[in-house]
Amino acid sequence: MKKYVYLFSEGNKDMKDILGGKGANIAEMVNMGINVPKGFTVSTDACNDYYKNNEELSEDIRLQVELKLKEVELESKKEFGNPHNPLLLSVRSGARASMPGMMDTILNLGLNDEIAANMAKNTNNSRFVYDSYRRLIMMYADVVKGLDKDIFERFLTIYKEQKKYTSDLDLTSDDLIEITHHFKTIYKDNLHEEFPSDVYIQLVEAISAVFRSWNNERAIYYRKMNDIPDSWGTAVNVQEMVYGNLSKNSGTGVAFSRNPSTGEDEFYGEYLINAQGEDVVAGVRTPEPISKLKSDMPDVYNEFISIAKLLEKHYKDMQDMEFTIENGKLFMLQTRIGKRTAPASIKIAMDMYHEGLITKEEAILQVDPDKIDELLHKVFNEQELKIKRVIATGLAASPGAACGKICFEANKAIEMAKNGEKVVLVRLETSPEDIEGVNYSEGILTIRGGMTSHAAVVARGMGKCCVSGASELSIVNNTLQDKNGNVLNEGDYISIDGSTGNVYFEQISLEEPENSDLFNEFMTLVDSVSKMEVRVNADTVDEAKKAKEFGAKGIGLCRTEHMFFSEERIFDLRKMILAKTTEEREKALDKLIKYQMEDIEGLLKVMAPLPVVIRYLDPPLHEFLPKTEKEINDLAKSLNLTKEEINIRINELKEFNPMMGHRGCRLAVTYPEIAVMQTKAVIQAAINAINDGYLVKPEIMIPLIVDLKELKFVKNIIVETANRLIKEAGVDLEYKVGTMIETPRACIISDELAKNTSFFSFGTNDLTQLTYGFSRDDASKFLNSYYDKGLFNHDVFATIDEEGVGKLMQSAIASAKKVNNNIELGICGEHAGEKKSIDFCYRIGLDYVSCSTYRIYNARVAVAHASINNKKLS
Amino acid sequence: MKKYVYLFSEGNKDMKDILGGKGANIAEMVNMGINVPKGFTVSTDACNDYYKNNEELSEDIRLQVELKLKEVELESKKEFGNPHNPLLLSVRSGARASMPGMMDTILNLGLNDEIAANMAKNTNNSRFVYDSYRRLIMMYADVVKGLDKDIFERFLTIYKEQKKYTSDLDLTSDDLIEITHHFKTIYKDNLHEEFPSDVYIQLVEAISAVFRSWNNERAIYYRKMNDIPDSWGTAVNVQEMVYGNLSKNSGTGVAFSRNPSTGEDEFYGEYLINAQGEDVVAGVRTPEPISKLKSDMPDVYNEFISIAKLLEKHYKDMQDMEFTIENGKLFMLQTRIGKRTAPASIKIAMDMYHEGLITKEEAILQVDPDKIDELLHKVFNEQELKIKRVIATGLAASPGAACGKICFEANKAIEMAKNGEKVVLVRLETSPEDIEGVNYSEGILTIRGGMTSHAAVVARGMGKCCVSGASELSIVNNTLQDKNGNVLNEGDYISIDGSTGNVYFEQISLEEPENSDLFNEFMTLVDSVSKMEVRVNADTVDEAKKAKEFGAKGIGLCRTEHMFFSEERIFDLRKMILAKTTEEREKALDKLIKYQMEDIEGLLKVMAPLPVVIRYLDPPLHEFLPKTEKEINDLAKSLNLTKEEINIRINELKEFNPMMGHRGCRLAVTYPEIAVMQTKAVIQAAINAINDGYLVKPEIMIPLIVDLKELKFVKNIIVETANRLIKEAGVDLEYKVGTMIETPRACIISDELAKNTSFFSFGTNDLTQLTYGFSRDDASKFLNSYYDKGLFNHDVFATIDEEGVGKLMQSAIASAKKVNNNIELGICGEHAGEKKSIDFCYRIGLDYVSCSTYRIYNARVAVAHASINNKKLS
Repeated sequence: MKKYVYLFSEGNKDMKDILGGKGANIAEMVNMGINVPKGFTVSTDACNDYYKNNEELSEDIRLQVELKLKEVELESKKEFGNPHNPLLLSVRSGARASMPGMMDTILNLGLNDEIAANMAKNTNNSRFVYDSYRRLIMMYADVVKGLDKDIFERFLTIYKEQKKYTSDLDLTSDDLIEITHHFKTIYKDNLHEEFPSDVYIQLVEAISAVFRSWNNERAIYYRKMNDIPDSWGTAVNVQEMVYGNLSKNSGTGVAFSRNPSTGEDEFYGEYLINAQGEDVVAGVRTPEPISKLKSDMPDVYNEFISIAKLLEKHYKDMQDMEFTIENGKLFMLQTRIGKRTAPASIKIAMDMYHEGLITKEEAILQVDPDKIDELLHKVFNEQELKIKRVIATGLAASPGAACGKICFEANKAIEMAKNGEKVVLVRLETSPEDIEGVNYSEGILTIRGGMTSHAAVVARGMGKCCVSGASELSIVNNTLQDKNGNVLNEGDYISIDGSTGNVYFEQISLEEPENSDLFNEFMTLVDSVSKMEVRVNADTVDEAKKAKEFGAKGIGLCRTEHMFFSEERIFDLRKMILAKTTEEREKALDKLIKYQMEDIEGLLKVMAPLPVVIRYLDPPLHEFLPKTEKEINDLAKSLNLTKEEINIRINELKEFNPMMGHRGCRLAVTYPEIAVMQTKAVIQAAINAINDGYLVKPEIMIPLIVDLKELKFVKNIIVETANRLIKEAGVDLEYKVGTMIETPRACIISDELAKNTSFFSFGTNDLTQLTYGFSRDDASKFLNSYYDKGLFNHDVFATIDEEGVGKLMQSAIASAKKVNNNIELGICGEHAGEKKSIDFCYRIGLDYVSCSTYRIYNARVAVAHASINNKKLS
Repeated sequence: MKKYVYLFSEGNKDMKDILGGKGANIAEMVNMGINVPKGFTVSTDACNDYYKNNEELSEDIRLQVELKLKEVELESKKEFGNPHNPLLLSVRSGARASMPGMMDTILNLGLNDEIAANMAKNTNNSRFVYDSYRRLIMMYADVVKGLDKDIFERFLTIYKEQKKYTSDLDLTSDDLIEITHHFKTIYKDNLHEEFPSDVYIQLVEAISAVFRSWNNERAIYYRKMNDIPDSWGTAVNVQEMVYGNLSKNSGTGVAFSRNPSTGEDEFYGEYLINAQGEDVVAGVRTPEPISKLKSDMPDVYNEFISIAKLLEKHYKDMQDMEFTIENGKLFMLQTRIGKRTAPASIKIAMDMYHEGLITKEEAILQVDPDKIDELLHKVFNEQELKIKRVIATGLAASPGAACGKICFEANKAIEMAKNGEKVVLVRLETSPEDIEGVNYSEGILTIRGGMTSHAAVVARGMGKCCVSGASELSIVNNTLQDKNGNVLNEGDYISIDGSTGNVYFEQISLEEPENSDLFNEFMTLVDSVSKMEVRVNADTVDEAKKAKEFGAKGIGLCRTEHMFFSEERIFDLRKMILAKTTEEREKALDKLIKYQMEDIEGLLKVMAPLPVVIRYLDPPLHEFLPKTEKEINDLAKSLNLTKEEINIRINELKEFNPMMGHRGCRLAVTYPEIAVMQTKAVIQAAINAINDGYLVKPEIMIPLIVDLKELKFVKNIIVETANRLIKEAGVDLEYKVGTMIETPRACIISDELAKNTSFFSFGTNDLTQLTYGFSRDDASKFLNSYYDKGLFNHDVFATIDEEGVGKLMQSAIASAKKVNNNIELGICGEHAGEKKSIDFCYRIGLDYVSCSTYRIYNARVAVAHASINNKKLS
């Protein structure tokens, strides 16, 4: 017979898979000799068995529960269901990963009329006993039978009104006996059965109900959000009840072994004397700080302090503990790794490292890479935020907070910002021309678009706060409206939080983040264990400077098209695109080369002596075409064409599926003069920088390659143009030529490509699109259905799909290495800044990840994590 | 030293790779004892060496040429460059594959002033000698020096005018001496050097020039069109000159061992007495039928007949021979497999098989699968066609010829056709609603779109002639115009040829094809060796009937969306698409199910007992949305919505990249009720058919799968719905559930998918799009550049890309077979009807190919070819 039920003494902290987090930690405490109420854990296996068995507890499980219960009775010297010495039980969920509040709990199990009566007599505390009993009836009805507890609460409210009571505390012992009676009547009237007086039925039904709660709506949603597999199931902890509300010598609360907000090494928490856990949550009474326990019950306090230190040492991390004091006796109910703010996580990790409690590696692993963001971006004043109303919630597309005056047009934003005003740019969606306006804004709010929409990508690159896809809002006649009639005009204040996605229709103060010495020391530790580089995706000198400051070891992706986004430049770019002949195109290119060269020279110099990967023109040309009447008119005038002619050309460039259209290296094949211009710009920039005394490493990257001949064609143009210029200049300049690997076919023929290139950079955005056949711009429309139905549990554009896209990458690397073992391997898709994907990149042997500026710190920490966690592999 | 030069006697017919086709066949004839002018072949290796050596003949090659020339001199008892007994040579190209007229030739090599003078004296035929000499100068200037021969021709014309000659035949011996002199002057004046009197220089330069001609523009173009690798290079045949213009006892011509037009077993060809090959081509004199040679020179004729029979027996195929008779002696200049019409190819193959000359397999291999088309479609009257002018040439999208009155709208076409008129539908591009109009038309002409555009696919499916992408034409105000001002109005006659892409602005008579008994006998042979099935892509009962008649072994793809194309049905479909709630959608689906069920029942019955694969709704929904004002109004009225509301919903459905958007099984995930409806339709149809006594095999196919959970979700809907219906009906019905494999990810996770499906059908259209990142609708815009630059040499949407897409397919099959060895494997993309792709499908072990109706015969023959050619593999 499979073992489904474990006494606490049979478990330990490493058995989370079977016992759940709570059960495993309780077992560990029991083993450490810490006082914990007696009990046992019904395993996650039992949960899965329950579901397999058509949502019924099998005979095996029932039997094992009974046997373990007997042992608990022996230990506790009480008996479940025995009116004269009753054992009361709590039944709590506890999954492998923490899912706070998502699943159900039932307390005071084991009461019935007879037991309650006897207990009231024996304890001489009738009030306490019937308060517990009426709570059991309510919780049982709610959790086991699905009868909403509101019906009981309403009765209680009316009862108190009739008695003119103002608080539960006014209820007398007799009141509670009466209420208990009424609750049983409500139970029967609504459920057409009696509340079960058989305590074993209570127990079996309660365990079953907790298992069922694994699949309640909010638990499913929580798992989806947190990437927790449905298959894990939950464990159930059955434990002797202890009561913090028995006397003035009793109490209950929560404590942390260190301050979770600041990280200071101080005992931290709060408690209530003579209360139950529920009372803390209900907010009826204000809890006291844990320090007060020192004077209330000095012995208990000292015992608690030593337990906390013991647990911290044992777990090598800050602990979050629940406790109850019953008549002066301390019971630990739960301990777990405590959640903390980003600054606290650094402080705690570094302190523990300095204390010698943990190793360098352990200190690094304590800090969640995703939390680092918080240290870099402005945040709203916490006190102020508490009283502000969230009007809408979009996607948390780029972290940080912003507050400023609404502006609906990029040009207007620039103008207002130049006049010293803080501006939030609000757009239906952004397009490349908005980029300068974005730069001048405090933050961006878009009505449409996902986490990888243009606005989101650009904002993350600039470290601007961005909320995207706030579809509850709409833009109507230059006003921003919600569905409840709230309207903001241009110039009104708005606040947006890119870390939560929240939108506020009012002004909120901001606070600056600070980089502490401790943080810098932490990052030094991080780098000392890292075995993969972090580069940046950066297109401007400002971004590059910031990135270098943030620790980027080079530019892994410079999108040359972004260099043409300012008004003057895009005008010349449009002339190039609309050119009818090679001559016209070359004339326009002659103007563009100047911009390109200056920008690249700047980047090379800022980054020197680190490498700079320059990707040639990539997006479908029509992305740059004029859209407004005025833009078309201006262009027509300058090109000596009629508006109609321009429109015809624009129409010719339209594509059904531009993502799979005329873009990437296909542009260089159809218009080799573009590649010639870009090569001249790169090489001349490098020559200028060398002449100014810089050591530069330009790496030219060809996008969207699908074929060997195609690669050779474009590479030939580059090499011929570059070598001629270098020879003419007589300088010593080495450059690399490499390719993006972003189509399935490039992965398949990677050996051929590797023979002809110095580096690969995986473009996992496009690779994911093509491997799945998901258009990033459209997929959100149907992917929600996939999430809702549990078919997908994460966004494949955020975290690399290891099973599919990852397989292609792995086989591409294996084939490439066979023919060119020195090939440099990187990644520059959005995945490069995400911790799980970074771990994958490490495992498949990439040399670097290249992410947007404000994800560099996250990435550096994630790389360190990967380096530590995969030590055995490397 | 590598061997670069081969005496004819050193080669044989299997050495085409080295000697080229012409050289190898000449060698073979020499070995057979047939009289061929002496000579040698400079190999294709020498050609490649020439290009590697910076377009210069290496010393090795020159030396070998000299040595072999010596041997030819010994054999011929003449000496190259010896004025007293001169050997004259022809230098002709000859590549591995036939490239008629694409490369250069120089005749009469070895003449200079001294030799000519002596020869004139010795032969007593000064006219002949100087006529040869002046031709040499002209050809040499043209081919070796790039001096256009027009300049010589113009001189000749003026000379004749001055002399008042009407024909070259009027030129006297003295005239030709003078002309030769003038030609040398023209040569010197234009090229600033003397015509080389050194005959070795002539020879070396001539060989080099022929090698160079491998890379002239028309040769490159021809190779691209015919999929001939650039790397093959050409060989050069250097051969003693023989003259058909020496006397009345001389002549030259071309003959076929059987009639290449009808296939009749009769000696066929034409010749000219006292003439050179050029004269035949120039059309100055009308050649005589070869039968006349019987009376002119009976001995020669009989010798020729026996050589022809010998060659035919030897090569086991009909021969196309060039010959020259010099003073009554027959020289064979070339022999090769003769090109023939489709009817002739069947006739010849079957006759030779009946004669016992060739085996069944050899007979089958003689017939090109691509030619079969010609036997099925109407063709223009050949005589009439000769005098018609081609106005424009589009893509030969669907074979056959059509003539009718122009109509620009589908509804109008239906109306006119119902009035008994023959109509050609002319559209900018077609959309699904046009399908009924297409059905009523003789053929379709579109201005936009490629070989796999909607119009092309639909037309091929219906066996309608289609010319697509005729971009030289434009539709302006309901008229069709070319660029020269030719205009056709609605109702005017137009003729289009879907086998050539030609468009004529006038009426041309059509002729019906006939299926002969011989053809049927041939197809029986074909099927007797075939080891892979051919199914059809068919959506209507009419198509299915036709397909069964053509030999389809089932339906491999029924596109259920096509069943909704008629006016009434698309209206209900639109209501379903625009439904706001599940209830609304289900209501609309209730109307659609009737259509779907009736259609499927029809297909199952027609095909019984063969399998019918029914693919669930696949295209992005917006493809079916109303486009015209009227359609929108009608829909609004019927749905009780405002026009604006409809437009909003239409806009919501718009996608940036619909090909990678909300389509395929994604529709079934978001709207499971669609899959429920389709399953009900399929299963109820099958039940009805069974009740009517039919044996049916429905196979339900889920499109666009990317993930295992997705597959299971949709499959569950199907299985639950189907099994319930089957149980209710109490019938014995087996059905299969399978999936399209059309995304790279499906290939990668094919083992997981194979565990949960009964069959795979490769959708190589989408798979190619995604593997390359090529949108089929847009790629033509840039792929032309790829063809022009030699980067691609075939259309990856026409022939499977074995290196990329093929690799994905192979690995998908390997993984799938490991877990489900019984899985049925097919292909239903456009590639399934193309011979090279069919060969690939055979090699990777597919069970069937499924193509459009009018490609079934081609496919059956191609499958037979694959079965024979890969015999060793199976």
